[in-house]
This record gives sequence, structure tokens and C-alpha cells, in this order.
Amino acid sequence: MMGHESQKEKTTIVLFSGDLDKAIAAFIIANGAAAYDHDVTIFFTFWGLNTMRKDEVVKVKKGFLEKMFGWMMPRGAKKLGLSKMNMLGMGPEMIKHVMKKHNALTLPQLIELAQDQGVKLVACTMTMDLLGLKQEELIDGMEYAGVAAYLGDATQAKVNLFI
Amino acid sequence: MMGHESQKEKTTIVLFSGDLDKAIAAFIIANGAAAYDHDVTIFFTFWGLNTMRKDEVVKVKKGFLEKMFGWMMPRGAKKLGLSKMNMLGMGPEMIKHVMKKHNALTLPQLIELAQDQGVKLVACTMTMDLLGLKQEELIDGMEYAGVAAYLGDATQAKVNLFI
Amino acid sequence: MMGHESQKEKTTIVLFSGDLDKAIAAFIIANGAAAYDHDVTIFFTFWGLNTMRKDEVVKVKKGFLEKMFGWMMPRGAKKLGLSKMNMLGMGPEMIKHVMKKHNALTLPQLIELAQDQGVKLVACTMTMDLLGLKQEELIDGMEYAGVAAYLGDATQAKVNLFI
Repeated sequence: MMGHESQKEKTTIVLFSGDLDKAIAAFIIANGAAAYDHDVTIFFTFWGLNTMRKDEVVKVKKGFLEKMFGWMMPRGAKKLGLSKMNMLGMGPEMIKHVMKKHNALTLPQLIELAQDQGVKLVACTMTMDLLGLKQEELIDGMEYAGVAAYLGDATQAKVNLFI
Repeated sequence: MMGHESQKEKTTIVLFSGDLDKAIAAFIIANGAAAYDHDVTIFFTFWGLNTMRKDEVVKVKKGFLEKMFGWMMPRGAKKLGLSKMNMLGMGPEMIKHVMKKHNALTLPQLIELAQDQGVKLVACTMTMDLLGLKQEELIDGMEYAGVAAYLGDATQAKVNLFI
Repeated sequence: MMGHESQKEKTTIVLFSGDLDKAIAAFIIANGAAAYDHDVTIFFTFWGLNTMRKDEVVKVKKGFLEKMFGWMMPRGAKKLGLSKMNMLGMGPEMIKHVMKKHNALTLPQLIELAQDQGVKLVACTMTMDLLGLKQEELIDGMEYAGVAAYLGDATQAKVNLFI
């Protein structure tokens, strides 16, 4: 590592999946790494972007297919399904219930903690174009970049995960 | 790497998935790395924990939701489904059949080999709490830890996979 | 790194998934890394091998189960489904449509670009045996190897992803 660069450990996660359970795993690892003083980047691409959508409807101009994607994809962290045992939405409620019972942080709380800890949350601009997602539709405080920026971070990191 | 630490290459795998095919891939990589004298850790979290359940019913005290999770989740390596082409359980049988035909190790054999080779098998205690899994329900010889222990291993490893 | 070895950054991707969206993500990352002059390897295993099947039927001798796998699995990059919102094949068409609209490269074009950039495309011989896939059925220019070759590349790389 060069002298003028941060000596901190670096960790990157590509969050490709839009599943609640995988998003929770990604944010638990990210928050853990940030607590150990790593520089952490989560790069949201494809369905992973849904995790960061605002839960209210944001009025933006879109083409027909982009509108369809917008309608069909879950609007934000509270709406995600499970990768397994989704059972028409009963699975996510069960998981949320046991997380509450065990005082585990919910996904929205995990996202807030990540922002408080300075985890860099980057939305993949290429996927946003494809799916027709606009910056106004994602939660505040995100960065916007492409695969080059991801690779720049990842080549300086030891822990690079694709989730 | 510090002088007092092992000079061995390190490899870590987070096994999040409870799919037979992904568990087989994880254990083939882990056993390969161990054969090349890497220190290998598999960290089992979420559905990945099902891979390590004993196949007999173990009597433990549980709450209602924990019991439901226990009933609904596959009990051990022999009961897992496929991520693709599961076809109501026909897919796993087809895979097992061709593996036998080609003298490939079964998942239970791959797990045994991993234990023989000293692969560190770590169950995520946070997920165990959430899903209500008890240590008595998992196969013997596992370690129990959280995300901090995983990150400790991962930051010393070059190959870190999330499966 | 030893003096006689390449000083280039190295990146490896295990493509386990046979989903169109995940294959696109894998090739975008691989092509990005190659554009930044990394040595890049994609190791195709399990359903990921379907990405590299020729789209015409290739006559090869197979046993019954191998023939069934051959029939049931998608034949090549143009036939893959989505990991989410597949909707009986409507999802992939929507994605292809918006990719065309945005002048994004299609998966077959991304594969061609990867070959032009010298990305090493390696088919997992063990999975080929299991699923009964023959070298003649995969696109030209691939290499054939096992987990040992993958680990050899991965231990020299900083970015190692399992997709």
C-alpha cells in the first residue's frame, strides 16, 4: 500500500441480491467491518438497488418498461422477500418477528448504522439506467458510480464479497 | 503477516445458502484449499446452518416460531434441495445419482473429509439464536462464533468467498 | 509476488449461477478488470457452464441422465433465465429490451469482448463429467481444469468473487 493512502483495512461488498436475508447478512458484515475500523464499501447493483429505494412513491418521468420495473420491484428495505422460505411473505414476517424478539437490528436500522459508521453506499449507475431508477428514488447520502469505481476499491481490499 | 502468525495461506467461505449444489461447491473448494495446506474456515450462517444439522431429531426446548423454523428447514446435508432444477426433489436425486456413478464424494463425505483435514467449521451464533438452532442439533466438532471472528479470519486470507 | 511472475493485478470469478442477470454482472466485472489490465479468470462450474454452451445441438454420445441434464438445462447465453422476476421468460426479454435501448452490450457480446481482452475462461471439468457436458458442446477457446487450477489463480488475486 502506498504511503499516501489510508492504512486502514478495506472491505467491499457487491450487493446484487434483493433478498431480505442476504441484505441483512451484507449489512451485518459491513457494520462489523466498520466497527473494526475498516473502510467499507457496499456497491448496490441489479436487485440489490431495491434495498435502498425510498418506501414512498417518488414522482419521476419514466418510460413504459422503466415504470413496469418500478412497479414490480420491492420499494425499499421493508418490502424485501426472502431467498428461501418466503412463503408468500410469511417468511419475512417470521424473520422480522424473531429479530425483534432477540433485539436484533432491523434492516432499516442496519442501514442507518452503516451510514452513521461511514460505510460508503454506492449505487451502480449502469443498473439504475437499465432499470430506470432515479437518484431521487433512493435514500439520501448514497454515492453514484460504475464498475471502475468498484474495482478501484476492491483492488485495495482484502475482503471482497459478492452477495 | 506478523512473525508469530502462521505463514500458511488462508481461505474463508461464508456458507449462507442451504442449497445442496452450493454446499457441494463450498466443500469442494474448502477441501481443495486444505489439500494445498491452506488454513480454511467455513462460516455457516442463515440457511447454510442447515447443512450441518444432525439428521435425527434432537429434543431441545424451543419457542413456537423456533419450532416452526426447525420443522420447515431441511435437517442436514442429506435433505438439501438444489438452487436450480430442484423439481420437487427429483433434481437432488439426479445429482446424487451422477455423483455416485462418477465416484464423486457425497456431501456427507465431503464434510467428513473437511473435518479430517482440519477445516474450521464455525456456526454463526447470531443466526442460531434467530432460527432457534441449538448446539446439540448441529454435528459434533463445530466451533461457535460471530461476525467478529469471521472478519478476523477473512482479513488474513486472500480467498474470501460468500456462497 | 515472485520476480518471475506477472506484476499485474489478478481477479478471479467463480460463475456458479446459470442466471442471465448474474452472468451479465460477472462479465461486466471481468471486462472492467481486464480493461484495467488485470489478469482475469472466470471459472465456470455447475449451472454457470450453461452460459458457455453453444446454442446449436451438438451430437455427442451420452448416458440417459446426462441426456436429461442436457435437455433440461438452457443451451447457451441467449437462453438463460433471471434470478428474480423471470416471469416465465418475460423478465429476460424485458432486460434484453432495456439493455438494447441503452446500447448496453448483450451477454453474447460481453463474452466476445472478454475473449478479445484475453479473459481466461475455464470450464470446471468435474462438473462437466457430472452433468455430462462435452468440450464440443461449449464455445471455442475455453480452457479445461479443476479446483486446483482455480485455487492457484485465486491465491494470487486480490479480488475473488463467487457469483
